[in-house]
Amino acid sequence: MEIPAEDIAPMARAVELAGHGHGTTSPNPVVGCVILDSAGQVAGEGFHAYAGGPHAEIVALAQAGERAKGGTAYVTLEPCDHTGRTGPCSLALLDAGVARVVVGVPDPTPKAAGGAARLRAHGVEVTSGVLAEQAERVNEEWLTCARLGRPHVTWKFAATLDGRSAAEDGTSQWITSPEARADVHRLRAAADAIVAGIGTVLADDPLLTARPAGQAAEGRAPLRVVVDPDGRTPPSARVLDGQAPTLVAVADDVRTGIEADLLRAPHHATDPQLAPDRESDPPRGDVDLIRVPRRGAGLDLEVLLRELAARGVVSVFLEGGPTLAGSFVGQGLVDRVVAYVAPALLGSGRAALGGAGVRTIGESHRLTFDEISEIGPDIRLIARPNPQPGREK
Amino acid sequence: MEIPAEDIAPMARAVELAGHGHGTTSPNPVVGCVILDSAGQVAGEGFHAYAGGPHAEIVALAQAGERAKGGTAYVTLEPCDHTGRTGPCSLALLDAGVARVVVGVPDPTPKAAGGAARLRAHGVEVTSGVLAEQAERVNEEWLTCARLGRPHVTWKFAATLDGRSAAEDGTSQWITSPEARADVHRLRAAADAIVAGIGTVLADDPLLTARPAGQAAEGRAPLRVVVDPDGRTPPSARVLDGQAPTLVAVADDVRTGIEADLLRAPHHATDPQLAPDRESDPPRGDVDLIRVPRRGAGLDLEVLLRELAARGVVSVFLEGGPTLAGSFVGQGLVDRVVAYVAPALLGSGRAALGGAGVRTIGESHRLTFDEISEIGPDIRLIARPNPQPGREK
Ligand SMILES: NC(=O)c1ccc[n+]([C@@H]2O[C@H](COP(=O)([O-])OP(=O)(O)OC[C@H]3O[C@@H](n4cnc5c(N)ncnc54)[C@H](OP(=O)(O)O)[C@@H]3O)[C@@H](O)[C@H]2O)c1
Ligand SMILES: NC(=O)c1ccc[n+]([C@@H]2O[C@H](COP(=O)([O-])OP(=O)(O)OC[C@H]3O[C@@H](n4cnc5c(N)ncnc54)[C@H](OP(=O)(O)O)[C@@H]3O)[C@@H](O)[C@H]2O)c1
Repeated sequence: MEIPAEDIAPMARAVELAGHGHGTTSPNPVVGCVILDSAGQVAGEGFHAYAGGPHAEIVALAQAGERAKGGTAYVTLEPCDHTGRTGPCSLALLDAGVARVVVGVPDPTPKAAGGAARLRAHGVEVTSGVLAEQAERVNEEWLTCARLGRPHVTWKFAATLDGRSAAEDGTSQWITSPEARADVHRLRAAADAIVAGIGTVLADDPLLTARPAGQAAEGRAPLRVVVDPDGRTPPSARVLDGQAPTLVAVADDVRTGIEADLLRAPHHATDPQLAPDRESDPPRGDVDLIRVPRRGAGLDLEVLLRELAARGVVSVFLEGGPTLAGSFVGQGLVDRVVAYVAPALLGSGRAALGGAGVRTIGESHRLTFDEISEIGPDIRLIARPNPQPGREK
Repeated sequence: MEIPAEDIAPMARAVELAGHGHGTTSPNPVVGCVILDSAGQVAGEGFHAYAGGPHAEIVALAQAGERAKGGTAYVTLEPCDHTGRTGPCSLALLDAGVARVVVGVPDPTPKAAGGAARLRAHGVEVTSGVLAEQAERVNEEWLTCARLGRPHVTWKFAATLDGRSAAEDGTSQWITSPEARADVHRLRAAADAIVAGIGTVLADDPLLTARPAGQAAEGRAPLRVVVDPDGRTPPSARVLDGQAPTLVAVADDVRTGIEADLLRAPHHATDPQLAPDRESDPPRGDVDLIRVPRRGAGLDLEVLLRELAARGVVSVFLEGGPTLAGSFVGQGLVDRVVAYVAPALLGSGRAALGGAGVRTIGESHRLTFDEISEIGPDIRLIARPNPQPGREK
């Protein structure tokens, strides 16, 4: 498709605007909109800022006012055609008298799609696929979730240049710099859920919050998810501390009584001599439990992800450890890899990634490096899997 | 020290000139020289291009001619004061009537040093340490060798993003791209010696030449070194093929007869039924053997390196494998790491680096990333060890 040159700049701006919504629009997409008047001057700009707030088109139209008439609207995502918390954007664009609508990527959801068709039916010229790659990238979490019915997964790891994330004796604090760790907190904060395996919870007792310990989280806190087939999370684990909501995913065949153990705060904790009497303990309002079928040596991660999507989780930040990450990678469930590589060599100790179903070199999981940046003394590499023939995406 | 601002540009140019000698001046240093006339205009430029050729100062002075009188000479390395294949450069500068000499780094060798002192004694103003870091970096191989009495060692490895250099079944061709492999050949060509362990020779039967198989090497060929305590290199190994000189380093207690096995070309090779009669085989003129004491599970690498320096090897390109690389790293014998990181994940298989004497995280070998570049789809990271308190350098 030949893209009219004059469409590039306004769509690039719309993509930039869309990015401002990152981390706050979930479970909605990020969307940016630019409206040019009939003379080609910018008349309005908008982005979707938070779920429940006005859509990007509505914000931009309000700003453009009368100048929208006969103008062109650039929208990163096909305008919706359904009445949710706000009316359909397709109607709003028609009402405003916009003559042409330029779309980045079509809306893959049956519920919202149809905006382009309705606009065309009313005589509006619609061009689709302009800067599709950028419009796709800025909204990758939501689009992945909309298309695959499971959240977008970012796997983060920190390792030395020789790919190790702990020394021989198990020590790993700190491989990367404070700058890299601050960057991780920033990425965590933009995710809907932070997922860790029980191995990591038992080894490190992490908080899994989006802020360094001691700093209050502002705004919404990502859901903390522990993948714990046999319900081994200790009731005293910091991940159950109530700073943020937590979901413990156990196997569907796990012993009964696990609910009482995990969902009630042990008020006898101060006196370990007292017999436990969980049923009378106060419930932890912020911890939930979910039962998921087993698959192989762990839980069925695909089912787990679908359950998370059903709870409004669009983006997952997977923090390992290596065993759980190996399963995610092996099952093709990682959409983005964020690697923090420290300028250090260990030569022994735990590898950053555990078994991922690869036996021979031809089966290796191939990626593409999309971003390279220096974070303090460390290097951050962002990579995405290459498209797999036969894998829907 | 306050560096006069007007000294920066000419010294930076001298450093650039010095770099042109990379890979061809060994066992001499790379040196660049810029001469400004008394009005501050560039009158002459030069670099040392090959061992036995004129020194950088001589080239630049010849170009400057009369204009050198009263001018300033910028030299990346302190001008030599000894009569080698050419006369001392200090005298040449005095003869030309240069009024001031600006030096990047002092010459650490007792034989050649003293140039600055002689110039000062004759009333020439000498400023030292200008752009010392750059002048040091461009000449790092030679300076390391001059200071430590052993060659500069670059360890190169290729690995996936998760730090593996082979899959579970041992396959490793190819982890990195043709572009990365071409880059390796370029780096190999600039080294005086290419070192590999017997494990690598037995596993991969590599050529260890500076050119891809089939392409003739132009000019000098780096020495191929196999670190092989028990003399297990097969007489048919490609590394003994005569394309380039080869040195096999064995333990000093290795069986007698090893010389005959490795240093004579098996002319019965075509008929394996014939009893071997090595003493009558023609000598391979291009293979040499060296006996080195054992240390730990292998050879004493420090002794090996000193032996190589004695043979005029200033720079070593270490191609592993992981076991040998682990020993080099563990003994603090790696001066530069060149890592080719492929956008792929394996999750199992051989790690890029074997045991390097690290038990706990605080003992990890810390480096600094100095260069990050994209080579085809791969990323090349160049890192150097951080200065160790107490380690002479
Ligand atoms: N450098 C980093 O970026 C980083 C990040 C996080 C963690 N870590 C380190 O990683 C270490 C812990 O890692 P780990 O590998 O032992 O534990 P892990 O990956 O955190 O958890 C592994 C456990 O998860 C459970 N699991 C549930 N479903 C699974 C599935 N489908 N596939 C695989 N596992 C599944 C299993 O529990 P059951 O055994 O109960 O069945 C399994 O043993 C710690 O030392 C921590 O410091 C490093
Ligand atoms: N990806 C890459 O960049 C890359 C590069 C090179 C090789 N490789 C791979 O590495 C594998 C081979 O590696 P490897 O670790 O088995 O073998 P290696 O490191 O090439 O050689 C190890 C052997 O070197 C000898 N050695 C002598 N002195 C030593 C010392 N001080 N410390 C340690 N070893 C010493 C020992 O021989 P003895 O056992 O006879 O005592 C030792 O077993 C191959 O699969 C190859 O494909 C990968």
